Amino acid sequence: MTAVARVEQSLSKAMTSLVSANTPPKLTSCIEYTLFPGGARVRPRLVFAVADACGSVSDSLAGRAASAVEMLHCASLIQDDLQCFDAADTRRGRASVHAAFGSGLAILASDALIVGSFDVMTSGDNDPARCVELVSCLARHSGSAGGITAGQAWEAEPAIDVSTYHAAKTGSLFEAAVELGAICAGANRQEWRMTGRRLGAAYQVADDLSDVLGTTEQCGKPVGVDASLGRPNIVNDLGVDEAARRLRQMIDELIETLPDCVAPATLRETIRQEARRFLPKELDRSAA
Amino acid sequence: MTAVARVEQSLSKAMTSLVSANTPPKLTSCIEYTLFPGGARVRPRLVFAVADACGSVSDSLAGRAASAVEMLHCASLIQDDLQCFDAADTRRGRASVHAAFGSGLAILASDALIVGSFDVMTSGDNDPARCVELVSCLARHSGSAGGITAGQAWEAEPAIDVSTYHAAKTGSLFEAAVELGAICAGANRQEWRMTGRRLGAAYQVADDLSDVLGTTEQCGKPVGVDASLGRPNIVNDLGVDEAARRLRQMIDELIETLPDCVAPATLRETIRQEARRFLPKELDRSAA
Repeated sequence: MTAVARVEQSLSKAMTSLVSANTPPKLTSCIEYTLFPGGARVRPRLVFAVADACGSVSDSLAGRAASAVEMLHCASLIQDDLQCFDAADTRRGRASVHAAFGSGLAILASDALIVGSFDVMTSGDNDPARCVELVSCLARHSGSAGGITAGQAWEAEPAIDVSTYHAAKTGSLFEAAVELGAICAGANRQEWRMTGRRLGAAYQVADDLSDVLGTTEQCGKPVGVDASLGRPNIVNDLGVDEAARRLRQMIDELIETLPDCVAPATLRETIRQEARRFLPKELDRSAA
Repeated sequence: MTAVARVEQSLSKAMTSLVSANTPPKLTSCIEYTLFPGGARVRPRLVFAVADACGSVSDSLAGRAASAVEMLHCASLIQDDLQCFDAADTRRGRASVHAAFGSGLAILASDALIVGSFDVMTSGDNDPARCVELVSCLARHSGSAGGITAGQAWEAEPAIDVSTYHAAKTGSLFEAAVELGAICAGANRQEWRMTGRRLGAAYQVADDLSDVLGTTEQCGKPVGVDASLGRPNIVNDLGVDEAARRLRQMIDELIETLPDCVAPATLRETIRQEARRFLPKELDRSAA
């Protein structure tokens, strides 16, 4: 099964625990619209990649963790697009969730996905101690003490420390994905922390490049948002060429510093492939 | 220590895990404003009352569960007051959270509280299997499959089944409080389910009475909201006297059907006291 197929299968299974006969029909539609069809599924694929590299034997547990991180990511996208944040009416080439369903249902769908992310990780016949570690890890990276919630809230402050902001807003779910994958395989989450951090930082540079170079059609969402909202973007500071060089260097360092694991070759190749996808079409992808 | 003091102490402790040096200052203020000072703390006191009745030996675990249910309740109040739901500018006699901090920070504070509720229950040196049961229970009662999220979403449907709506919107966190208390003490959560359900139903009647009979000053929030928003209210169907009679009858049945436990007398007395507080001042409280 391809990596994407594993993610889709896991998310379809998670969907059955998100909705029941007691779920109002419009909320069900709104959650489905949010989760399917997805984007690149970068974060959940990363959970599987790290779990595999660490020798995970339970595809079910990794699938639950992968679903959880994608559900949280989708919840964050719903909220990003709301009128009180980016006020974006499009996302992934179609109406954003609040544009399609109204702000109320959009917020409730994000609630459902946040709650559901913790629920899905603790369902099933898994080792309770491992489940508790998954919950703790996801909470740390999604909550107000430095997680994605904190990241979004930095935008309301008069002065932002850019690296703190990016680490929380973008990096945290990459860190979560990597650490969740390690936990699923019974590996030491601490040893994988820096890998998650480096991946998150690399993705931020890639995302900044996309925002400057991409088109709405390519990205499926408005571009040039950072400039119009006055948000920091590394490309504005360094220029396109230097930012792209920085990205390639970050990927090299990331791969060189991977922790010991059972199957490092596949993980390395996955990261290289991702890095090629990261780079906007305007740049030479083969250089990554 | 009084019941309220135990709740406040637990919430203060929970607050230290909600915020850190990596929490943006305005988000910290917004979370503090949401949690303190609180309302009647009905749900977390209920967690302690059931845990005590079931012979809980860990005040720490019950305190974590009590904090979790109150944090979720406070998150739901933030959202209820948003422009896209009740558009209420006051709550508990002062500006509602979005009126004081803006919708963006209000939504992020609710995210922080939802995430934090799962985090706080799984922190500390508790039995992992019990922690997993707490997570699963809270998720069930707060999520989209019949929990409080589903309850709020029923308001977006053209036709509402009133009992399904009330069970999810109001009953679910009472069920959560009762079941969480039982789990903390190692009791069988299933045996306590009906008690939670009956309590939630009784509270709904009490809340309907308050909405019709109370004043904004007494309730600390706008009253007459159900009528102005066209929402179902039992008093409109039955009249005040019959609704009050129904409430007293529900409390009697609730007390008669309490499951076997270590210390039932205290729990019975707590419920009777609560019932007296439930009834609006206009009615004879001693009758409850």
